[in-house]
Amino acid sequence: MKLATYKDGSRDGQLVVVSRDLALAHFATGSATRLQQVLDDWNFISPQLQDLYVTLNQGKARHAFPFDPRMCMAPLPRAFQWVDASAYLPHLQRLRQARGAELPESLTTDPLMYQGGGDDFLGPCDDAWFGSEAWGIDFEAELAVITGDVGMGASPEQALDGVRLLMLANDWSLRHLVPAELAKGFGLLQSKPATAFSPVAVTPDELGEAWQGGRVHLTLQSSCNGRKVGLNDAAPDMQFHFGQLIAHLAKTRNVRAGSIIGSGTVSNADPGKGFGCLAEKRAFETLQDGAPKTPYLSIGDVVRLEMKGRDGTSLFGAIEQRVAGPQALQPPEEAGLAEAGTGADASDG
Amino acid sequence: MKLATYKDGSRDGQLVVVSRDLALAHFATGSATRLQQVLDDWNFISPQLQDLYVTLNQGKARHAFPFDPRMCMAPLPRAFQWVDASAYLPHLQRLRQARGAELPESLTTDPLMYQGGGDDFLGPCDDAWFGSEAWGIDFEAELAVITGDVGMGASPEQALDGVRLLMLANDWSLRHLVPAELAKGFGLLQSKPATAFSPVAVTPDELGEAWQGGRVHLTLQSSCNGRKVGLNDAAPDMQFHFGQLIAHLAKTRNVRAGSIIGSGTVSNADPGKGFGCLAEKRAFETLQDGAPKTPYLSIGDVVRLEMKGRDGTSLFGAIEQRVAGPQALQPPEEAGLAEAGTGADASDG
Repeated sequence: MKLATYKDGSRDGQLVVVSRDLALAHFATGSATRLQQVLDDWNFISPQLQDLYVTLNQGKARHAFPFDPRMCMAPLPRAFQWVDASAYLPHLQRLRQARGAELPESLTTDPLMYQGGGDDFLGPCDDAWFGSEAWGIDFEAELAVITGDVGMGASPEQALDGVRLLMLANDWSLRHLVPAELAKGFGLLQSKPATAFSPVAVTPDELGEAWQGGRVHLTLQSSCNGRKVGLNDAAPDMQFHFGQLIAHLAKTRNVRAGSIIGSGTVSNADPGKGFGCLAEKRAFETLQDGAPKTPYLSIGDVVRLEMKGRDGTSLFGAIEQRVAGPQALQPPEEAGLAEAGTGADASDG
Repeated sequence: MKLATYKDGSRDGQLVVVSRDLALAHFATGSATRLQQVLDDWNFISPQLQDLYVTLNQGKARHAFPFDPRMCMAPLPRAFQWVDASAYLPHLQRLRQARGAELPESLTTDPLMYQGGGDDFLGPCDDAWFGSEAWGIDFEAELAVITGDVGMGASPEQALDGVRLLMLANDWSLRHLVPAELAKGFGLLQSKPATAFSPVAVTPDELGEAWQGGRVHLTLQSSCNGRKVGLNDAAPDMQFHFGQLIAHLAKTRNVRAGSIIGSGTVSNADPGKGFGCLAEKRAFETLQDGAPKTPYLSIGDVVRLEMKGRDGTSLFGAIEQRVAGPQALQPPEEAGLAEAGTGADASDG
């Protein structure tokens, strides 16, 4: 099943069930108004939503309406926990190699994860607002899961059973603020502003055989201003699967329903696949040519992330966000937002 | 006004208004059932609770009942954001000096803050459960504030205006897991298990003149098994006030209603005041005698934190928690929990 949260002026929005092809939506009001409610009481509420989903897919839902991703908040507009990993080693390897740092051996056995802020997520089509271009604005194309309750000390297999929903994330990053925060050792705070999530969150069964061993065996498409940045296979280079990441988090505490765990920037050892963020592209350029040639993002740039199922249809809908900031913005039409939106399929493919 | 959340078997509990002397409570049902609701709509709901508070203090509330801290969850049983600072430099100085590390100059101008997990807080009298004593179990006696909405780029003064409530926190820490996580640079994850908060959260006006310049000018009492560990003045050595801490967090993102910001372990340059955690006491012992003599906590130990107002009454109620773990526990009476509870006033004073 596919779930989304519609903007209604409230902080938590209105839960909607979305058809498999992302064409239709239906308010879930009879069962729940907010996604957190569903996660809090999954076994009781989710079957009701699944029934509505089946009816909706059959074209028989009486109050269905056309689904519009621009009406979406993040599926969980705010979450009690957001933890992001860095589970793709090629991403770390390139970044560290480019600055002449060693990759510690332990990273193959001990996941790198940081705790993020869950209080202010962005919807998939919301502008991402930054105080300064000088901060080094970058996107990160990621997968993320939303969990049910996972008890302290859970094994990776038990933790994997706790995965309720999957979605895409754009983990906005401020690259020039990262080094000082890494040096402090206390994690990433100012360098990780509000994260955005895909229009819909989907249950693992929607992925069919593409969901295997806690990894998603599909391609994550990243583009900037309609031009491809990456077409990355999400499975092969993911060092730790989602069950392992959740279990790492749960070693010393309970992980409660509605926790979001991100994969980190999807990346491949093969640079021909492109990159899931600009920092990695710049690191690759540095390693090749001695200096980066791709600039970080500017006000007005549009980032688009999407993942298609094996049948070629969009699984989660696209994250498509414009970089916004204190300098005056052009109206969306003139800035080419509509164009990037409609033209992205071709340029991403 | 003073607010608490009573256990009712649900994840968010039931909001109660508590009398100034912590003797009586009253369900806030007519205005709100959960504290997050109040924070989401503070200007509308808080005056209603304030009215109930006045009536309760006058002894005229019709359905008042005796307040029992053991019935309390954390005032916010789960929060969309929990960020903890380390704002007391003597704490950092002792810890780093004891391990021969330098205190970077920047710590006097750039606050150290880590993002914590908000999904699973402990109530003030809940057992704190740990998988192993070998992790180096320690408490941290802290102040914390709950904010309203604070916009990106807010000044320290604007941020300070966003403080809605104050409370105590026990930021449980696993000392032997800290060094490896600090070295990874991504912050404290496994080394910071579920945090506990005081029975009540109070509006700043409850502190009177003791709330000045974003600091609390009162003494935080810490004890372990009924024996004093610290009697620390919370104001003089707090390098950054709460407005500065919130503004640091808000530099690159909005801070939304219900965010909790902690002060870090309250500490004083004068070691005669004692310590707000065992790690600092051990660091002091190491600097004095070459080795620590105070062990970390064991299963069955009881930690108690409390802060009294200038009139001598308990401001927030006491956090009083027993360390629990996989090894068999004695019943509370035999372990001396009741004794530590009633005897703590004397031994803390």
